Amino acid sequence: MKALIFDVFGTVVDWRTGVADVARTLFADRGIEADPFAFATAWRAQYDPAMEKIRAGNRGYVRLDVLHRENLDTVLADFGLEDQFDEAALADFNLAWEKLPPWPDSVAGLTALKAGHAIATCSNGSIALMTWLAKFGGLPWDAILGAEIARNYKPAREVYLASAAALDLAPGEVMMVAAHNSDLAAAREAGLKTAFFPRPMEHGPGQTSDLEAASDWDVVAADLEDLAARLQA
Amino acid sequence: MKALIFDVFGTVVDWRTGVADVARTLFADRGIEADPFAFATAWRAQYDPAMEKIRAGNRGYVRLDVLHRENLDTVLADFGLEDQFDEAALADFNLAWEKLPPWPDSVAGLTALKAGHAIATCSNGSIALMTWLAKFGGLPWDAILGAEIARNYKPAREVYLASAAALDLAPGEVMMVAAHNSDLAAAREAGLKTAFFPRPMEHGPGQTSDLEAASDWDVVAADLEDLAARLQA
Repeated sequence: MKALIFDVFGTVVDWRTGVADVARTLFADRGIEADPFAFATAWRAQYDPAMEKIRAGNRGYVRLDVLHRENLDTVLADFGLEDQFDEAALADFNLAWEKLPPWPDSVAGLTALKAGHAIATCSNGSIALMTWLAKFGGLPWDAILGAEIARNYKPAREVYLASAAALDLAPGEVMMVAAHNSDLAAAREAGLKTAFFPRPMEHGPGQTSDLEAASDWDVVAADLEDLAARLQA
Repeated sequence: MKALIFDVFGTVVDWRTGVADVARTLFADRGIEADPFAFATAWRAQYDPAMEKIRAGNRGYVRLDVLHRENLDTVLADFGLEDQFDEAALADFNLAWEKLPPWPDSVAGLTALKAGHAIATCSNGSIALMTWLAKFGGLPWDAILGAEIARNYKPAREVYLASAAALDLAPGEVMMVAAHNSDLAAAREAGLKTAFFPRPMEHGPGQTSDLEAASDWDVVAADLEDLAARLQA
């Protein structure tokens, strides 16, 4: 196993807190009383249906930044806030996805893993989004791979295969790391090794999904630092 | 200016010394008395003609690793050494391009620049080659861009434009950094900002090319650390 590739939203960074932080500030500036966490959750809920059109071949590939911006319009309308933001403010709001805090163990875990392996993103985020997000949080990636390389979205098989191929590695030489069982199921199906740890606060208090490994993944860890310790052992 | 993108072979790493070091060891193992520096120079001389077929549209895009491997056959034959290496040894020889030492100022200069900007490769090397080379030398790239993103080779205009676009930046928000005047001329033509410093030992003693800036590049520095100091001033 020569490289680890990572899901990022939820696995490495806390998108719910990050998006809610940006929403809270923008709402306060305008005297809006909407719940920023509910807004973050609603925005994220548009994510998979938007990608599904592209995975299904009903739309050509566009970057996730474009989907996020379209989905922002939808969610603002759902919250009755469509008249509160001009174009510049909407563009600014969309940058919330570049300002997501890493989980407390993420930077230390990635840094430890980087000493022995190549570490790269295999996210649905664009190259730009992943690059600026890494700079925001100090994520020490060796390379930015994933959706934009493959011009499709996970869990489409070619996203995993294109990420391995970009490193000139066979699928079995690469381990997919995610806090989402469905992501790992698709990666395993494509021939990659798999590692899981839970992120029980990804969706906030009361989360019911992905609290534990749903299959016999190659490694099951407590968090990213624990994964590094297990792979070095 | 939000990002710097870099030529790598010659500008950031010393390909001539690195390739000669690998050749010297492989030659010694076989009692071959060829000059490893002459071999490195001859191998590199095949680089531009091989890419030109692809730039001219006479061949589809293949990664530089493939061109290097084909060119290795040519150069070994030119040196009368075609019978001295089996397939495994040839594959190993080709990995010389992943083991090139950074120039003494490269890691410190890149690290300083990374604090204030995104830094990425804009090399003709593949994503895999650039990733493993960065791990070999400790080059702290934020992203690996360049030829493979564009599926063409510099100085084709789209390699510079695709690298800027991958960061969601306009060409004028990106500075191309190279020790080669021709690379910068093409980058400027594509609308990028430009920075030059010389690498007077890239081709060994007696180098006659690229000893100084051939145009009024936006920044002219002594080396990578000096470039970082000038951009922070």
